[in-house]
Amino acid sequence: MATLGLIEYRDASPEVRAVYDDIMATRQTDSVNNFWKAIAHDPATLRRTWESVKQVMMPGALDALTKEMLYVAISASNQCGYCIASHTAAARKAGMTDAQFGELMAVVGMANETNRLASGYQVEIDERFRIP
Amino acid sequence: MATLGLIEYRDASPEVRAVYDDIMATRQTDSVNNFWKAIAHDPATLRRTWESVKQVMMPGALDALTKEMLYVAISASNQCGYCIASHTAAARKAGMTDAQFGELMAVVGMANETNRLASGYQVEIDERFRIP
Amino acid sequence: MATLGLIEYRDASPEVRAVYDDIMATRQTDSVNNFWKAIAHDPATLRRTWESVKQVMMPGALDALTKEMLYVAISASNQCGYCIASHTAAARKAGMTDAQFGELMAVVGMANETNRLASGYQVEIDERFRIP
Amino acid sequence: MATLGLIEYRDASPEVRAVYDDIMATRQTDSVNNFWKAIAHDPATLRRTWESVKQVMMPGALDALTKEMLYVAISASNQCGYCIASHTAAARKAGMTDAQFGELMAVVGMANETNRLASGYQVEIDERFRIP
Amino acid sequence: MATLGLIEYRDASPEVRAVYDDIMATRQTDSVNNFWKAIAHDPATLRRTWESVKQVMMPGALDALTKEMLYVAISASNQCGYCIASHTAAARKAGMTDAQFGELMAVVGMANETNRLASGYQVEIDERFRIP
Amino acid sequence: MATLGLIEYRDASPEVRAVYDDIMATRQTDSVNNFWKAIAHDPATLRRTWESVKQVMMPGALDALTKEMLYVAISASNQCGYCIASHTAAARKAGMTDAQFGELMAVVGMANETNRLASGYQVEIDERFRIP
Repeated sequence: MATLGLIEYRDASPEVRAVYDDIMATRQTDSVNNFWKAIAHDPATLRRTWESVKQVMMPGALDALTKEMLYVAISASNQCGYCIASHTAAARKAGMTDAQFGELMAVVGMANETNRLASGYQVEIDERFRIP
Repeated sequence: MATLGLIEYRDASPEVRAVYDDIMATRQTDSVNNFWKAIAHDPATLRRTWESVKQVMMPGALDALTKEMLYVAISASNQCGYCIASHTAAARKAGMTDAQFGELMAVVGMANETNRLASGYQVEIDERFRIP
Repeated sequence: MATLGLIEYRDASPEVRAVYDDIMATRQTDSVNNFWKAIAHDPATLRRTWESVKQVMMPGALDALTKEMLYVAISASNQCGYCIASHTAAARKAGMTDAQFGELMAVVGMANETNRLASGYQVEIDERFRIP
Repeated sequence: MATLGLIEYRDASPEVRAVYDDIMATRQTDSVNNFWKAIAHDPATLRRTWESVKQVMMPGALDALTKEMLYVAISASNQCGYCIASHTAAARKAGMTDAQFGELMAVVGMANETNRLASGYQVEIDERFRIP
Repeated sequence: MATLGLIEYRDASPEVRAVYDDIMATRQTDSVNNFWKAIAHDPATLRRTWESVKQVMMPGALDALTKEMLYVAISASNQCGYCIASHTAAARKAGMTDAQFGELMAVVGMANETNRLASGYQVEIDERFRIP
Repeated sequence: MATLGLIEYRDASPEVRAVYDDIMATRQTDSVNNFWKAIAHDPATLRRTWESVKQVMMPGALDALTKEMLYVAISASNQCGYCIASHTAAARKAGMTDAQFGELMAVVGMANETNRLASGYQVEIDERFRIP
């Protein structure tokens, strides 16, 4: 299921359980994704990554749905199958409609296309976009 | 300035000028980015790409700012210097605040990190994220 | 099993068998990975790639374990499922502990994050890092 | 110099200065890289990223030099010019010799090559590399 | 089968059917790939993408086989499993021999290797390759 | 000019000079690209990479121009500025016309777009594209 297997709640150390508990409380679910169960083999990485994700994904200047759609866009660009599946599910849970998903994908496609046209044509940055 | 140089308006064919005119009218500016001047060497690509970008970036289920921020996120993930510069400028023009830019970058960073933790730990997709 | 199928030892030409023999002798195993059996359809690529890998992965200024961990780090960054699986196994065979794997993944995650923060914020290279 | 400019120590808030102070103390230098001065526009990202990098790059199961070389390998694979420059400098400071750099680059090259041969030939993961 | 499922011909709207019909007529087949059936959930993306692909892949200054091999090369570099499978099949249909596939993969491998040696060694562009 | 500087012919060891001589003889030029002068700091990598590139880029089942265009396509997808510049120059020397370059870029753009639509929509490989 993962390089070192998945650590289920019942088999987890108190340190790992504390993170699992916070994940479930924050996300208001009663289960933890495989991602967390896999990296739980390294409790320091589990805690650091969860604390960071929790802080970064909290609604602020950007709302929760926008943040999840950004995650999907990046995961699709990076060809990360796991992340596309889990964050598409998260975006839907945050309210993403089919129409929003369609437009999201359309932007992902165009950005990846024009990123390569810009590099392939060796386009120099316009003077007015340069940072002084 | 670009592989085949930049085609300025005064030197452009009527076909290319028509696209430039539509770009300036749509974006309500009086200039055209280097990107379009570079790919104008291939009028078919210029027209097709512009028509696609115009359609995709038009506000719809997602607003203009969200679309520009998605573009920045993907361009940063892909290390496209030109696109980061031009779409960060476009996002600012669409109203992106410093706080929004900060949160955008934070998500970009975390997504690129967890994309690799998921692949490196060989995490299998959770059953409930699988598409039936 | 692969685009052109896998070429097993019993079905291999003498030229391909010679490479398989060298792989098994060098690695002190009695089997050859699917990777080699797949590219064996092009004996020139099989030979060239094996000779290169053999030369590059030989312990020298860097030891075998460090080299395998570098391979895992790059494969995880590139989302190459096959390479992550095979080189994680190779790194373990070379002595990688769970603690080392955990720290390896932590660096992979952070590097992929800060790579994008650096590009997204358009950070210019510090004068003292520039090559004269 | 960066999207939002660089925040120098003299212009920094107490919160940002505290991070700069910790960076300089931890690294035993009297200056802070442009990277930190650029992301300092978002103090939350500055603090979180620094705390994570400090924790991850601390010598543990892997020594400081190995960690810096992993950083260089990933940055080269990702084409992040800033990160290649800064982490190559950091690896040298941690003792990387020219011979080690040469072998590091050789592994980076081969891994990026075989990552694509594996995907292009659609090689299936060997049964013995599969996680049960 | 895909995020939103696949839309079969029998279930498709007239708008989607018209695109499917054009795909089958242009490609002289009696079926439509999963790719099109998946993006058909967004008819605007379906139409735009098909019209673009049809225009771009039409033989012109480059023949159909060369264009399909370019597609395979890029898909392998990007680790897109779906695209590698479908475009390798398309390249074969366009006449790609095993020998051509072998050389194609060899170039893909070398290009991905030297792309990273060039970035990792921080090689500056030769004056004579610079665009004036 | 590069991490370890460039090694000019006059300063090169006999071993490095032998490779430079072969490069100039094979390519019928009287100069050597910065790429080779940069990696010459590691004569083993210089020799291995040159021998591999020479073998792979030699016309065979694919002609020289097709191979150079594949190199440009991959380099543009990977955002390798050095490689885009040097291989676009090489492709021109091998006879690439402006029209061919235009179609090459158009394919690069579309492939990078549809690679992400395929991953983002989580499209499953069609049964008939699967390798038995």
